[in-house]
Amino acid sequence: MNILVTNDDGIDSAGIFALAQALAKVGSVTVVAPDRQQSAVGHALTVSDPLRATKVRREGGVFGYAINGTPADCVKLAVCSLLSEPPDLLVSGINHGSNTSKNILYSGTVSAASEGMMMGVPSMAVSLDSLDHRADAKPAAEYAALIASRFHSFSIPKDTILNVNVPNIPLEEIKGIRVTSQGTSGWEDAYERRKDPMGREYFWLSGQYNSIDNGLDTDEGAMKAGYVSVTPVRYRLTNDEMLSPLEALHTLRLG
Amino acid sequence: MNILVTNDDGIDSAGIFALAQALAKVGSVTVVAPDRQQSAVGHALTVSDPLRATKVRREGGVFGYAINGTPADCVKLAVCSLLSEPPDLLVSGINHGSNTSKNILYSGTVSAASEGMMMGVPSMAVSLDSLDHRADAKPAAEYAALIASRFHSFSIPKDTILNVNVPNIPLEEIKGIRVTSQGTSGWEDAYERRKDPMGREYFWLSGQYNSIDNGLDTDEGAMKAGYVSVTPVRYRLTNDEMLSPLEALHTLRLG
Repeated sequence: MNILVTNDDGIDSAGIFALAQALAKVGSVTVVAPDRQQSAVGHALTVSDPLRATKVRREGGVFGYAINGTPADCVKLAVCSLLSEPPDLLVSGINHGSNTSKNILYSGTVSAASEGMMMGVPSMAVSLDSLDHRADAKPAAEYAALIASRFHSFSIPKDTILNVNVPNIPLEEIKGIRVTSQGTSGWEDAYERRKDPMGREYFWLSGQYNSIDNGLDTDEGAMKAGYVSVTPVRYRLTNDEMLSPLEALHTLRLG
Repeated sequence: MNILVTNDDGIDSAGIFALAQALAKVGSVTVVAPDRQQSAVGHALTVSDPLRATKVRREGGVFGYAINGTPADCVKLAVCSLLSEPPDLLVSGINHGSNTSKNILYSGTVSAASEGMMMGVPSMAVSLDSLDHRADAKPAAEYAALIASRFHSFSIPKDTILNVNVPNIPLEEIKGIRVTSQGTSGWEDAYERRKDPMGREYFWLSGQYNSIDNGLDTDEGAMKAGYVSVTPVRYRLTNDEMLSPLEALHTLRLG
């Protein structure tokens, strides 16, 4: 199995290194990742600048390609130009910081997986529930490799990715895997209003995350209870229930 | 009605000017938009840099605030800090370039609306089917104002935004409005491989868009047929049909 590995924390992160090592037991790994931290970049694409691919060495050998772009750029460029054939699986991560509930929409890690899916590559995203970049990503990497090894046994449809979130506890304390739905937790946003040394005003984002999902059938709840959460995610965005009520619009016309 | 207006083409674009003018007939408009072009930025947020809000004058009066950030930043900052109370409606656009089918995922214009929705603000995105920045955005702005004036009559749920796409034809040639579903058209990606003057390789994204949706019940199809397309969009991302098949994962455990 040929596995493409990417992330949004950048190619130098501990998470992607642990992931590549664990996946090497499951298949042949190619790493193509941003050359720097790209968190909260969402599904951004670089359309007005050239991309460059630089070979990166790590622990004596070639580790992968660093790209001056976003996670979605890395996936597109890898599949279109860097790899000789499309990979059998894309794994994005290990992200430092969970990507559950509404955070999925902001996540570069999950967007890399959805970009892979749109290019026809079976894809999954893996995140660890700790923003500390020294947190041990190995348990998450081991579970990622386990799920990757079974990925093709589940007949996952072409429009669906797996979004995996792992609690930040030792491997032996993880209680197992739960299949979950996207939760509804979100941010209570705030900005701190400050003055710079020239007296000009600026704003820092300083939101609080409200974790309100507790059920084991939610991504957030399962992860908080010590399970690896696996959510099947797809981007079928039409709210079908509103198609009929909105038809009153058909009577309006200008000009 | 207090209306917040933003976009991803930047506060200097013709599209946002036409939109603000048209909406001024429907309510009291405040413009908070990126200080420069932010296309394909998706749902990116600025988390590691301070934001600044600069008053921008246009045609003799204060037009709005320019923010050194993404469309989602503009919405968050406006609702949290710049406006004295949450707006009754957010309208994002007029984007130069349609945001139909899979393009919704890359769109800064639509992401601004979904950010508004997540903050509890009724929200809509409006895009014009032309990448030419000299294209006339006024017909799209007139339809945006018409739909905005009726927005609160449709009992649109809190998790749903309206995604509006307008054909690039004169107002009197637009056939009316169709309520539609998200289409399935997408990109055939490619990168041009080039050498810079120093002989180093770089890549330019040069994809082709394959427009395969023709039905009047799809965003792309309705727009191509000369209608304003209105799609109710929500981000309920779980693929419920896969929850049960994936439960085989519950039997796996490491450590």
